Amino acid sequence: MKTYLDCIPCFFRQGLEAARMATQDEEKQREVLDEIAKELPQISINSTPPEMGRKIHKIVRRITGSSDPYREIKDKYNKIALRLYPELKERVIKAKDPLLMSIRVAIAGNIIDFGVKNAHIDIEKEVEQILKQDFAIFDYIPFKKVLGHTAELLYIADNSGEVVFDKIMIELIIEKLNKKVTYVVREKPIINDATIEDALFCGIDKIARVISSGSDGPGTFLSLATDEFRSYFNRAKLIISKGQGNYETLSGEDKPIFFLLKAKCPIIAKDLGCKTGDIVLKGQDSKIAHSS
Amino acid sequence: MKTYLDCIPCFFRQGLEAARMATQDEEKQREVLDEIAKELPQISINSTPPEMGRKIHKIVRRITGSSDPYREIKDKYNKIALRLYPELKERVIKAKDPLLMSIRVAIAGNIIDFGVKNAHIDIEKEVEQILKQDFAIFDYIPFKKVLGHTAELLYIADNSGEVVFDKIMIELIIEKLNKKVTYVVREKPIINDATIEDALFCGIDKIARVISSGSDGPGTFLSLATDEFRSYFNRAKLIISKGQGNYETLSGEDKPIFFLLKAKCPIIAKDLGCKTGDIVLKGQDSKIAHSS
Repeated sequence: MKTYLDCIPCFFRQGLEAARMATQDEEKQREVLDEIAKELPQISINSTPPEMGRKIHKIVRRITGSSDPYREIKDKYNKIALRLYPELKERVIKAKDPLLMSIRVAIAGNIIDFGVKNAHIDIEKEVEQILKQDFAIFDYIPFKKVLGHTAELLYIADNSGEVVFDKIMIELIIEKLNKKVTYVVREKPIINDATIEDALFCGIDKIARVISSGSDGPGTFLSLATDEFRSYFNRAKLIISKGQGNYETLSGEDKPIFFLLKAKCPIIAKDLGCKTGDIVLKGQDSKIAHSS
Repeated sequence: MKTYLDCIPCFFRQGLEAARMATQDEEKQREVLDEIAKELPQISINSTPPEMGRKIHKIVRRITGSSDPYREIKDKYNKIALRLYPELKERVIKAKDPLLMSIRVAIAGNIIDFGVKNAHIDIEKEVEQILKQDFAIFDYIPFKKVLGHTAELLYIADNSGEVVFDKIMIELIIEKLNKKVTYVVREKPIINDATIEDALFCGIDKIARVISSGSDGPGTFLSLATDEFRSYFNRAKLIISKGQGNYETLSGEDKPIFFLLKAKCPIIAKDLGCKTGDIVLKGQDSKIAHSS
């Protein structure tokens, strides 16, 4: 997805929030905003928003000296999510369509996102709502078809905390459908995005291989990909991509990707052809999306 | 009021909205944002937000070549407001406390503000709500006291359209309370702020003297004041200041000012000590505000 002009005010909002997370020093917070302003004219509208996001958070780290401003928040939400795990797991097992319920659970986890404005989350209430919400884009039949024809899949994570929700879907795919899953996290801390620490904390490594995409930005940047990730990505018959950042960076790739997300930003919603607040299961390849 | 760091993302939002109002050319819109970014590091946090607002809209005018991007919107809301005039006028006349109702009407007019985010206004619904809403700050007794002791007052306008609502309050003050009123508008077009054209369109000149503050920004800048305005301002025994921009630029002045506004921005609300959406009649001078 390209950068829309509406993303620009949001870059400053995001930089300010991250700076405040990293330091209470208002002069440093201001310096962060001035540095973002210096960077702005170099940003091409044809680059994806997470490319600027990546630069913004580099600025925040450099100026504040904090390498992982969201670590505390990440730990907090990992723990909250683990507390919800048993109940959500049971709902998937007891559901009429456990796969569909596990997709809903995985999308519900996507509310834990501190890159988005007003991330004050009443997590249990929002999860409950998403478990019952209608999908705005629902490529479920093609998804099941592709899943049925592949023995292994790539699952690209988005946020910490959300990792626990992903785990419930991944357990179902492994234990009930006998597939092999490779779980992809960011290489370095960025906002509250999941890194290897979060995957280990939630025990994903016990059921799936966990690899890094090589990315130190809030998305999946193929230009930064490790050889390992690139090899998985290129040969994958099915890629599950969680959240907005991965959508923004991968929506232009001609791969068998299914995007699972809640549209939290009006610009991404517009790009997807849905509304803010909608939940989406969207197949990337037009052949996939429209086959049944 | 000083500039808060939260104002900075909003400067870009405001610049983008104004650029879009002035031109459909996305490259020019982008250029506006880049120019705002260049200006940003020079802005002192101790200057008021409308000082940056003034620079932003100068950039918009220079790059788009449009000297008054909001002219059409201003005409539209002047006409809408004139249509509401007879009914609102009657409500003031028939009210148990006509002065208080006229203050409510004047504040209700303050919803017509295109400097603020999401200015999609259901005008009749919002007016109705404000006419019944509780005040968050209500220095009505001191206001009446000061008004009782002065023969003439200065009334600083905010937006076009709103001018019609002001007129209802001004008519009451002139006709029922026998005061003289001087009505102050901006010197040059800025956002949808009221200029001499709007005052004439709504016929304020028929009941009050209309003068310019000298300001070409979205507030009242004493540094730009005409000699005429400065003279009125310095000797005034009562100044009514409408809206956020005038509050932002005049809240530091030790003058007998009463601010009438609806708090539409969370930062201004915080500065005032109220919440977004609140309505306010706030006396500036602490002696005024707390006398009764």
